[in-house]
Amino acid sequence: MSDMRLIVAGAGGRMGRALVRAIAESKGAVLAGALEAPGSDLLGKDAGVLAGLPANGITLSADLWAMSKDADGILDFTVPAATIANVAIAAQRGLVHVIGTTGLSGSDNAVIKSVTNRAVVVQSGNMSLGVNLLAAVVRRVAKALDQTFDIEIVETHHRMKVDAPSGTALMLGQAAASGRGVTLDDHSERGRDGITGARRPGSIGFASLRGGTVAGDHSVSFLGPFERLTLSHQAEDRMLFAHGALKAALWAHGKAPGHYTMADVLGLSDI
Amino acid sequence: MSDMRLIVAGAGGRMGRALVRAIAESKGAVLAGALEAPGSDLLGKDAGVLAGLPANGITLSADLWAMSKDADGILDFTVPAATIANVAIAAQRGLVHVIGTTGLSGSDNAVIKSVTNRAVVVQSGNMSLGVNLLAAVVRRVAKALDQTFDIEIVETHHRMKVDAPSGTALMLGQAAASGRGVTLDDHSERGRDGITGARRPGSIGFASLRGGTVAGDHSVSFLGPFERLTLSHQAEDRMLFAHGALKAALWAHGKAPGHYTMADVLGLSDI
Amino acid sequence: MSDMRLIVAGAGGRMGRALVRAIAESKGAVLAGALEAPGSDLLGKDAGVLAGLPANGITLSADLWAMSKDADGILDFTVPAATIANVAIAAQRGLVHVIGTTGLSGSDNAVIKSVTNRAVVVQSGNMSLGVNLLAAVVRRVAKALDQTFDIEIVETHHRMKVDAPSGTALMLGQAAASGRGVTLDDHSERGRDGITGARRPGSIGFASLRGGTVAGDHSVSFLGPFERLTLSHQAEDRMLFAHGALKAALWAHGKAPGHYTMADVLGLSDI
Amino acid sequence: MSDMRLIVAGAGGRMGRALVRAIAESKGAVLAGALEAPGSDLLGKDAGVLAGLPANGITLSADLWAMSKDADGILDFTVPAATIANVAIAAQRGLVHVIGTTGLSGSDNAVIKSVTNRAVVVQSGNMSLGVNLLAAVVRRVAKALDQTFDIEIVETHHRMKVDAPSGTALMLGQAAASGRGVTLDDHSERGRDGITGARRPGSIGFASLRGGTVAGDHSVSFLGPFERLTLSHQAEDRMLFAHGALKAALWAHGKAPGHYTMADVLGLSDI
Repeated sequence: MSDMRLIVAGAGGRMGRALVRAIAESKGAVLAGALEAPGSDLLGKDAGVLAGLPANGITLSADLWAMSKDADGILDFTVPAATIANVAIAAQRGLVHVIGTTGLSGSDNAVIKSVTNRAVVVQSGNMSLGVNLLAAVVRRVAKALDQTFDIEIVETHHRMKVDAPSGTALMLGQAAASGRGVTLDDHSERGRDGITGARRPGSIGFASLRGGTVAGDHSVSFLGPFERLTLSHQAEDRMLFAHGALKAALWAHGKAPGHYTMADVLGLSDI
Repeated sequence: MSDMRLIVAGAGGRMGRALVRAIAESKGAVLAGALEAPGSDLLGKDAGVLAGLPANGITLSADLWAMSKDADGILDFTVPAATIANVAIAAQRGLVHVIGTTGLSGSDNAVIKSVTNRAVVVQSGNMSLGVNLLAAVVRRVAKALDQTFDIEIVETHHRMKVDAPSGTALMLGQAAASGRGVTLDDHSERGRDGITGARRPGSIGFASLRGGTVAGDHSVSFLGPFERLTLSHQAEDRMLFAHGALKAALWAHGKAPGHYTMADVLGLSDI
Repeated sequence: MSDMRLIVAGAGGRMGRALVRAIAESKGAVLAGALEAPGSDLLGKDAGVLAGLPANGITLSADLWAMSKDADGILDFTVPAATIANVAIAAQRGLVHVIGTTGLSGSDNAVIKSVTNRAVVVQSGNMSLGVNLLAAVVRRVAKALDQTFDIEIVETHHRMKVDAPSGTALMLGQAAASGRGVTLDDHSERGRDGITGARRPGSIGFASLRGGTVAGDHSVSFLGPFERLTLSHQAEDRMLFAHGALKAALWAHGKAPGHYTMADVLGLSDI
Repeated sequence: MSDMRLIVAGAGGRMGRALVRAIAESKGAVLAGALEAPGSDLLGKDAGVLAGLPANGITLSADLWAMSKDADGILDFTVPAATIANVAIAAQRGLVHVIGTTGLSGSDNAVIKSVTNRAVVVQSGNMSLGVNLLAAVVRRVAKALDQTFDIEIVETHHRMKVDAPSGTALMLGQAAASGRGVTLDDHSERGRDGITGARRPGSIGFASLRGGTVAGDHSVSFLGPFERLTLSHQAEDRMLFAHGALKAALWAHGKAPGHYTMADVLGLSDI
């Protein structure tokens, strides 16, 4: 198969630049277009130079229809309004649409799903291979162990993060709860401090550390009688998410229309 | 069901004493006999006192046939000759035989398997729940990830351990190799030192740390582009292995004759 | 120098038994007496057997005066009333008094200090070498780094622990605050959960994990721009505290009268 | 004091671009010049654009003499020949010369030292604050602990690294050996594999992990009886080294002539 021709949406942003770099570093894909919002100061700039690479002759443009004539896919980590605008064109052009945009509403998601009878969409709130795999493994381990093993989830993020626990920590907690056949809301134990009494059997604990420039560490520990099992993930850089998106695109190239997730991309259904 | 009546083989040794303590601390099992080698100085001593517990009236004896009249199972972490001697009696008495003895020869194992058409045997080189679960998870993760993820296995044990890597580290390496569909012998990278050149793609690295009184730490890392997944286990105490054996016995109580492993006990076949 | 002859106070308790084992395993010290509370059921029992060792002929007694005739020191992890009762006799007999008892009141401590013009006392709330050394190192590192490094302290203990953070975590926080020249009360950040906003510059964060049988893990992280420094300690077993007490006794043997701490024992004043 | 005006040597390389970014992100320093090798294709390019920043009007030039007329310092992570060429000009111009270049020969170092009676030089093989601090702490801890604590050093680097252990791991080993008052050569234990026998008392072990894109993890563990102390450092990004160099320059601005190290910059002499 010839190289997959990919458009990067939001190519002037931090995540977009990372996507341009990921494509440049990879085999099997080439940059086919660089989309940026109408009115952006960056329109007309070279996508390679913006990404800290040599110039590649692909300049930022706001015209997805034009640039997608000969493209195979679009990597889209933007904002809900932009993503929804891209959905229709991507579907009409037959592009694989990889969506990492967060904050989508229920109706946004309905729009996305409405095209998947004729278009290929891969969508996930976390495009990291490792975190998705970790969640699958946590669910299985939680299922295999009984309540003599206490579950504790710890995450660390940079000092600017404003909420705790992280969304990914909560996703891992959901995976653990699902493995145990309980709901997280009834079993989560957060902000432990003071005279807490002994640990509540079956609870799932969360702790959040903040500091420095940490891109994102997550660990799930199963603390049992005389032994501990800890499953952990560390993101070193947002390039991680760029590579995950690229892998998703390559995987989806040529697939039947449908709505896919990173679990599909990774073959995690049989984990 | 009434409590399972268990015999501890080698009840005067360090592991035997741990097994006696594990039974005393648990629900669902009672100590029914304490086996020790003929000629041992400890014959006639109280098994509870030896284990640092109050006297329990069960004295060490070398006569398995007599003590097993009313027993349901035997926990056996001894030496090959003793275990083989116990196999026939356990089978005849209908005891669940939990075997954690290591160093068994091929013919020893053949003897054990010869009785499993009529007797229940649970056998494993590592009775820890966590390590067996870790191995299952490592195999799945290794299967899900391609060679852009490098696998590194690290183990730490106390300063007296004479061999490296640990048997358990090699077991985890086997699990990783199996997940990747390769053989460990062709892909293992040990004792890295000096001018090694870049890492060989697809290899599985091992590193061994030694020091202090560490009971046994194992970790398997999958180091990929901009992310890392690390799955680790820590044994805090040999009580861990005693509890694993006890769980195996309780699980096997009433099972059909057969040769079972800890993977069966833990339900790891569907992990 | 001949072996130091040591009395273990509370020799029938869990910590006392650990002390008896520590003496038996060590060079340079022998067990000279085993003290237990008047009225205890264990009076008259063999201290070795109680500790899971062969009998050693030293039986538990409540008479410190008699047993200390030929002794050099006493290891005392008991309760305040017992410790205070021991102080006078230890001083009169010229025994090194190693005190690990916690919960002592101000007046208890005054009694202890009142004898140190003529007696040798080593006293600490945590007899672990490692934790005391960790605290010294944390203070130095905190002093060397400015507020571009965020300090996060994490501790893990078994599921039965009722308070958070652990006393040792707070001690480490004090060390960090002292290194920075601030007070911990004004800078501690505990129980982080929900919409917290960005991290408060200069704060010292605490997180507490609970589960299983963890004897005590502590770590202090300094999270800075693009790098992290983590200083951590793990207690594997309460034998740790027994060995610390034994080291303290051997160190203090022959020292001038005075009130010493583990920092003195370890030579941490010049760390 | 007005902003320190800094020249970046090798401004077109990966480390040079990181230095340009570090200056742009920091307070107290401005970019005053961008030096590149004569004949480089990048001469004349904008240093900001090359660094992934907006254009800053400072173009790469090979003429250090000209660009240093109004400068205060030079950050130099290049190659020995270039650094030696820069030494004389920097000294004549009165620039603070921060040297992170590695592979310098004995005679190279002699040249550098020859100017330090009249010029300010800060030189270190590792410009990370954290690693230098870690080394200081390791030396102190090694001094405080006796041989009942076994020292194990573990480092992890990306899959392309060709030598093991890392230079920084060896530096940490030197620090540990120095703390113990021994030489590393006589006590290092590398490449542990096979039937090793029990650990040699007093040895310092090294293990090297390789994989993925790891920028550089180092840990030094002190494994003792029932406890472990682990001091570890993680570099997230080479920006770390850029920030270290910048801090060194700002610290050295206005200092008396001399040859300084990162230990001086960090005030680690009194750690």
